[in-house]
Amino acid sequence: MIFEGIWLTLVGSIASALVSSSFIPQIIKGYRTKKLEDVSYLLMILISAGMSLWIVYGIEKQDYVIIGANVTTIGLNMLLLTLKIKYSH
Amino acid sequence: MIFEGIWLTLVGSIASALVSSSFIPQIIKGYRTKKLEDVSYLLMILISAGMSLWIVYGIEKQDYVIIGANVTTIGLNMLLLTLKIKYSH
Repeated sequence: MIFEGIWLTLVGSIASALVSSSFIPQIIKGYRTKKLEDVSYLLMILISAGMSLWIVYGIEKQDYVIIGANVTTIGLNMLLLTLKIKYSH
Repeated sequence: MIFEGIWLTLVGSIASALVSSSFIPQIIKGYRTKKLEDVSYLLMILISAGMSLWIVYGIEKQDYVIIGANVTTIGLNMLLLTLKIKYSH
């Protein structure tokens, strides 16, 4: 074991931050251009469903890094969904 | 514990399939239109870095669902990166 305890938690948290960062450019672009046509509802629903299952997985494994990571990304996804609904009216 | 053993593995695998599915429309669109300008190199590198760390996390935790999930998504990400390089010449 190279990483243990707090170090392993750090690895998981950085991993989660990096992957979640992929939502941010899209949120900024949507906020600036008031357009989010290239983001599909189906895709957001699929991703949110997947992340919800990852949260169930994290709870069963009592793995707070997995729970935290997916709660964050679902939050970003919900923000993207809200912007998309708002700008499509 | 609601889910255990094989059932928990199933939950993690479905979660992974759902989240990975978010790459597929972009790969198909890129393949059809031979254009991937709206996908940024930086984003792909950030996501791949994040997923590589998740693999390290999965190895340390000996969690084959996390390892498998992130190996799949990195594979899809590499495919997207290859298409983008190919079509940008």
